[in-house]
Amino acid sequence: MTTRRLLLSAAFAGTLASVLPAGASADTPAALVEKREFRFENYATRGGATIPVVRTGYQTAGRLNAAGDNAVLITHFFSGNSHAFGQLQAGGPPGWWDAIIGPGKPIDTERFFVVAADTMVNLNAADQFTTTTGPASVNPSTGRPWAMSFPVVSIRDFVEVQKRLLDSLGVKRLALVAGPSMGSLQAIEWTVAYPEMVERVMPAIGTGEMDAWMLGWLDLWAAPIRMDPNWRNGDYYAQGREPPLRGLTEALKLITLHSRDRGWAQQFGRRPVEGQDPARRIQDRFAIEQWMESTAAARAKQADANSLLYLTRANQLFLNEYPSSKAALARSRARWLVVPSRTDRVFPMEYSEELVKELKEAGRTVTLAPLSGGLGHLEGVAGMAQAAEPIRSFLAG
Amino acid sequence: MTTRRLLLSAAFAGTLASVLPAGASADTPAALVEKREFRFENYATRGGATIPVVRTGYQTAGRLNAAGDNAVLITHFFSGNSHAFGQLQAGGPPGWWDAIIGPGKPIDTERFFVVAADTMVNLNAADQFTTTTGPASVNPSTGRPWAMSFPVVSIRDFVEVQKRLLDSLGVKRLALVAGPSMGSLQAIEWTVAYPEMVERVMPAIGTGEMDAWMLGWLDLWAAPIRMDPNWRNGDYYAQGREPPLRGLTEALKLITLHSRDRGWAQQFGRRPVEGQDPARRIQDRFAIEQWMESTAAARAKQADANSLLYLTRANQLFLNEYPSSKAALARSRARWLVVPSRTDRVFPMEYSEELVKELKEAGRTVTLAPLSGGLGHLEGVAGMAQAAEPIRSFLAG
Repeated sequence: MTTRRLLLSAAFAGTLASVLPAGASADTPAALVEKREFRFENYATRGGATIPVVRTGYQTAGRLNAAGDNAVLITHFFSGNSHAFGQLQAGGPPGWWDAIIGPGKPIDTERFFVVAADTMVNLNAADQFTTTTGPASVNPSTGRPWAMSFPVVSIRDFVEVQKRLLDSLGVKRLALVAGPSMGSLQAIEWTVAYPEMVERVMPAIGTGEMDAWMLGWLDLWAAPIRMDPNWRNGDYYAQGREPPLRGLTEALKLITLHSRDRGWAQQFGRRPVEGQDPARRIQDRFAIEQWMESTAAARAKQADANSLLYLTRANQLFLNEYPSSKAALARSRARWLVVPSRTDRVFPMEYSEELVKELKEAGRTVTLAPLSGGLGHLEGVAGMAQAAEPIRSFLAG
Repeated sequence: MTTRRLLLSAAFAGTLASVLPAGASADTPAALVEKREFRFENYATRGGATIPVVRTGYQTAGRLNAAGDNAVLITHFFSGNSHAFGQLQAGGPPGWWDAIIGPGKPIDTERFFVVAADTMVNLNAADQFTTTTGPASVNPSTGRPWAMSFPVVSIRDFVEVQKRLLDSLGVKRLALVAGPSMGSLQAIEWTVAYPEMVERVMPAIGTGEMDAWMLGWLDLWAAPIRMDPNWRNGDYYAQGREPPLRGLTEALKLITLHSRDRGWAQQFGRRPVEGQDPARRIQDRFAIEQWMESTAAARAKQADANSLLYLTRANQLFLNEYPSSKAALARSRARWLVVPSRTDRVFPMEYSEELVKELKEAGRTVTLAPLSGGLGHLEGVAGMAQAAEPIRSFLAG
């Protein structure tokens, strides 16, 4: 196992920089955290394939108690990584849920041992500050990147890797597993897969069900990559080949706007790009179009196209081992805090309302704490401080 | 002016076939209608360009009275054409709003003279049953298709062409202008541009404001076309060149799913494509993905990629000649019936609620009549029969 102190992922900072309130990190400097690597061999995927070596980055805060039962697992969103809390370098940006994780904060690192890990097939595979195993990793059997020969993995596979990491750390029980968006899918899959191990679960901006409409949207997120001639069925890693940056950029544009809402977009108004006139020239554009393009193009340089294809599939396979989401949810023994965003366009709030209903019918203790604000889906990352009091109450009980 | 009796556009039938209730047309055969062509010369666009010849298809039902004030204009949605009512051939499918337009129906053709016209830059430019002028039309100055040299046109330009058509038919006043989605934008632009001419306006599944978030979505709808190497900056009409069908298909997949909601998608469940296993093979897919692909690919063969680019721009330019949508709406002198869909993901219902609020503040008489059901945006086309009684009341007054 190697230990590295990392600079904050520039890619990741780019994602949040436009939505975090100015000076958010200045008032309460986040604690320093170290990024580590966990590695194990011969992982049998849920789909029946074998991955000779799995590497995953993770970070922790707080101390595990003797009973090993004060652990909290934080699971990240689609384009995120394990930098959920703290600073990786003095003066660097805080993690994406730093507002609720830290000493004296709602998820109190003086009480809990908090762990966050990079998922498999992480989008930021090309980012030096993310450690993951996926299509961009080298297949030890061939000495070349897996590309599209990497096995399909599911959210449940993410959970299995995290389980091995937690076992290696001595964790016996999770006082809480929590995450936003794709993180919520992991949190739910955890309480379903290991009901006896999860005391509380907090899915934010998530869903308890991956239905056909969402399967379709995930397909659309990935579609531009397959369209890019540089994609070459995933075989673009060789020296001298261009990666499918155009397709990846278009995919990230779609994901970016879908994850936001009109309140956020108001800052652009109907302004054209400076010096352009969309009412007279078809090639001229509006300011928001330029922002989407430049932000996604910058982000694409740090991301891996094949990993996005595998990530969308992993999401599509949420709870796929159970006859229905209802049957899956019935396995949970946890207490629940469900935190949707009212303006969410990716996982609309009604999915969370239905999750709460199903959990109540199954006899679970569950609280719904919706977030307000115009950021849409992203409210569950950048606006999570709103849920501070519900989280404190949830963890007090 | 030429007159043609047309078979129903196969392209268009494809759009609705999957959502119209089985046998919807069997119970009440729609009246036969004829498709005609209106043509005029030297149109000066709102953007300051000149189009030497404008051709537009249209159809009518009922008879214009001597005063010319019993006319109704029906404006079509993004992927639609003027076949809003009636049958173009005995036994053929009914128009897309046939449920509410016809003898004795809420928009009663025994009382009203009802007109519907194909817009400029119509998506179905390649369809023999749509008559339009746009990038796929021949520029008389060069003898070749305009392609991307066609001038930018706006929703207001659509209105101006319709105004000339109505003038040619002797229409003095519109008892009603109504349409779904992009049709609602035209209807609103009508009452703003010609307040003295519009007695009632009924925007369905629409918005009173084209904000930055929607500008961004329209950009995403068009993006796959620009990615397709066969697009060649719009220069794909020459013999021997392939049109950008891949990009157009991806664009139509996005528009198709965005226009629907989970209630509609339930029919697919989480089924994989027959014989495939998405949990084990990355190239395998779910049934809804296959449906999206095959439906959009079939639709793309009847559509024109450049026209989709011009259509998205026209929508972006909704009410662009006014300092704000509020200032624009204040010009209306009409009575309003606003018909949103509760599950609309394209123009979420809150936009209609805000439109109603603004109209009330401006002193207008306005009724809100939301549609229910799981079809999403498309509810305002396929589910419009729900609004029958509100429309009858609206037109009685």
